[in-house]
Amino acid sequence: MSQPATKRGPLAGIRVLDCTGVIVGPTSTLLLAEQGAEVIKVEPPEGDLMRKLGGKAPANAPGMSPKFMHFNRNKRSIVLDLKAPEGQEVIRRLAETCDVFVSNMRPRALASLGLTWETLSALNPRLVHCTIAGFATGGPYDGAPAYDTIIQGLSGVAACLEAVIGEPRFAPFVLTDHIVGIIAAQSICAALVARATTGEGQAIEVPMFENAAAFVLSEHLGQRTFDPEGSFGDPRIMTPDARPMQTQDGYICVSANTDPQARGFFTAIGRPELMDDPRFRNVSARLANVADYFALRAEVLRGKTTAEWVALLRRHDVPAMPYNTLASLLEDPQLRSSGVLTKEEGEDENMLGLRHANRFSGSSLPESRLAPRQGEHAEEILAELGYGAEDRARLMGKGGAA
Amino acid sequence: MSQPATKRGPLAGIRVLDCTGVIVGPTSTLLLAEQGAEVIKVEPPEGDLMRKLGGKAPANAPGMSPKFMHFNRNKRSIVLDLKAPEGQEVIRRLAETCDVFVSNMRPRALASLGLTWETLSALNPRLVHCTIAGFATGGPYDGAPAYDTIIQGLSGVAACLEAVIGEPRFAPFVLTDHIVGIIAAQSICAALVARATTGEGQAIEVPMFENAAAFVLSEHLGQRTFDPEGSFGDPRIMTPDARPMQTQDGYICVSANTDPQARGFFTAIGRPELMDDPRFRNVSARLANVADYFALRAEVLRGKTTAEWVALLRRHDVPAMPYNTLASLLEDPQLRSSGVLTKEEGEDENMLGLRHANRFSGSSLPESRLAPRQGEHAEEILAELGYGAEDRARLMGKGGAA
Repeated sequence: MSQPATKRGPLAGIRVLDCTGVIVGPTSTLLLAEQGAEVIKVEPPEGDLMRKLGGKAPANAPGMSPKFMHFNRNKRSIVLDLKAPEGQEVIRRLAETCDVFVSNMRPRALASLGLTWETLSALNPRLVHCTIAGFATGGPYDGAPAYDTIIQGLSGVAACLEAVIGEPRFAPFVLTDHIVGIIAAQSICAALVARATTGEGQAIEVPMFENAAAFVLSEHLGQRTFDPEGSFGDPRIMTPDARPMQTQDGYICVSANTDPQARGFFTAIGRPELMDDPRFRNVSARLANVADYFALRAEVLRGKTTAEWVALLRRHDVPAMPYNTLASLLEDPQLRSSGVLTKEEGEDENMLGLRHANRFSGSSLPESRLAPRQGEHAEEILAELGYGAEDRARLMGKGGAA
Repeated sequence: MSQPATKRGPLAGIRVLDCTGVIVGPTSTLLLAEQGAEVIKVEPPEGDLMRKLGGKAPANAPGMSPKFMHFNRNKRSIVLDLKAPEGQEVIRRLAETCDVFVSNMRPRALASLGLTWETLSALNPRLVHCTIAGFATGGPYDGAPAYDTIIQGLSGVAACLEAVIGEPRFAPFVLTDHIVGIIAAQSICAALVARATTGEGQAIEVPMFENAAAFVLSEHLGQRTFDPEGSFGDPRIMTPDARPMQTQDGYICVSANTDPQARGFFTAIGRPELMDDPRFRNVSARLANVADYFALRAEVLRGKTTAEWVALLRRHDVPAMPYNTLASLLEDPQLRSSGVLTKEEGEDENMLGLRHANRFSGSSLPESRLAPRQGEHAEEILAELGYGAEDRARLMGKGGAA
């Protein structure tokens, strides 16, 4: 893709008032920020919980935990005590100037702070107002607190792990927060698309549990879709054999679903006649005999090194790649060439940062900035809102800003 | 949220030419379709691979596998042989009339079919052209085939499972396809937001590997972020104790991260003095003693039933919910009230369907339609393009359409 002239990103000009914390909300606004939106992160006086909960911060930068840094780059921070009149004054002024408001507060908290769609749209009818909730309003869990592990357990993520490893476990990510945050960013952009036609903002409700359940069930409702007695689960995924496979010196991942790929695989292993085996001769046959098909692969792959297999299989156009540990991932030649993993030009020469992975022909993405220190941009944000020196002095440190 | 009058969704009026298959592409266009975009699914003569690979279809509906159905609802289908001149004629005419083109073909295939951004934007400069690629172009793996398990193994997803369960395993979902598909939908909408200002479309490249690696590393780069010798991994997630916990009669998920939550938990278990224990007295202390904190919870929770604990913990505002199996998820009162899981009014009275989980105040979402049969809408799509009866007869069944 040729290098475009501007460095603003597709969301340049969109201003986001970000009253979110921890992971789900910051994930949504990270995508917007990286694509050029101006994100103003409003933190409570105690700061985003993830500053402390996201791992050990460097000694010279308290509150800058690794996980906080990776989910909050390219944002600016202002601290507001939303329970104080000064904080209320500033947040309402911010809402008047922004295109998007995002929060993951519970509905009750949002209402008590005067930050509902009804209140804010009266100030700014063009505002897109997104509430990321634990549960859809109106249901029996409405307003119940929700965290990722709660949602993983309730939505069937942990049950799917039980199906393959034999005991309930969580996927080792803040998985539902992370996925629902991306979905929230998508829905916010959809509402901005609508606004371009209607001229009006709208409220969006993004419930974590329902989105996570739909994610799980779309994959694993399986035969239960058609039959009340049918079995759950995509058998290609739920079979215990679907895993990275051992080679002579490590692990490899091989995918051979289509007929040409299966033929390529059988040829690569020197057994082209298997393409005529009734168990393997087409997609339906291999699906019905998935255990046999996996067992064959597991047996054969032990015979060569990972690098030998990757080269051989690739010659036959069979998808195959080595298994990366997190350490080997950092050395992966594709990742290194992509610019997604970078050395930050920060206080610490060793610091690793991440970049948005997508490319847009219309504009380069904005220069990446480190995540903000708590309240780092309070004074400049107040100045942009038109507060003079006297007003800024009135507001700073008094709940209005810090 | 009050019920809006229109039933069109925020993306009403957006027309999507969907040349994708399997999971990653259909995931992206599913979100667009559910939010009101008109999605035209172009299938090759053999059909989307997921029709066969997505489980067993009902006897009276060949090709309608459960997984295909859940990822393709609300779309229309036309079969085009893009290697035939008739197929080329129709796809180019479609590209002229659409706002968005999405494909997950490899770059080489896209070029050989004349479907690159350069070619299609010459026909329609307002087109947003999204290529979901395995790997960012220009890197060493550029053009290599990519499937979900390949990307899970290469991007560190499987390595994170190894970190908690002791052996490389895949997350039991088409995880990276599913996540990157959502990211693609988000980027497409961002480009549509830009188009509303610039009047111009653009090309987007969404690489699966790089997006998946950024997903993993943002969570688990951990102390390696700052220190070349530092350890990977978010310890709260990677500790083997972070799992659904056994109660007297099942499992429960409890999250108690903030000080008020921890205090609530200690009070609920009748040991409020633990809040003064140096291991547990604040977020940093509990993080440093995460194994002890989990062990305490595991020990205590065995003493009551899941329902007793959920009620008790909720009274103390400690996030807690039961662990659902997929079967119990279908009976979950919140899911049942949300409308996400529905009985379909289709040929089969037992059929379960899924609905978009988000709500928009500006419009209801469109009525949900079942996934299309292969080529179901070919004739009507041709008619909409202005092809008369004679032309349709020329095109149907000749590679032009079916």
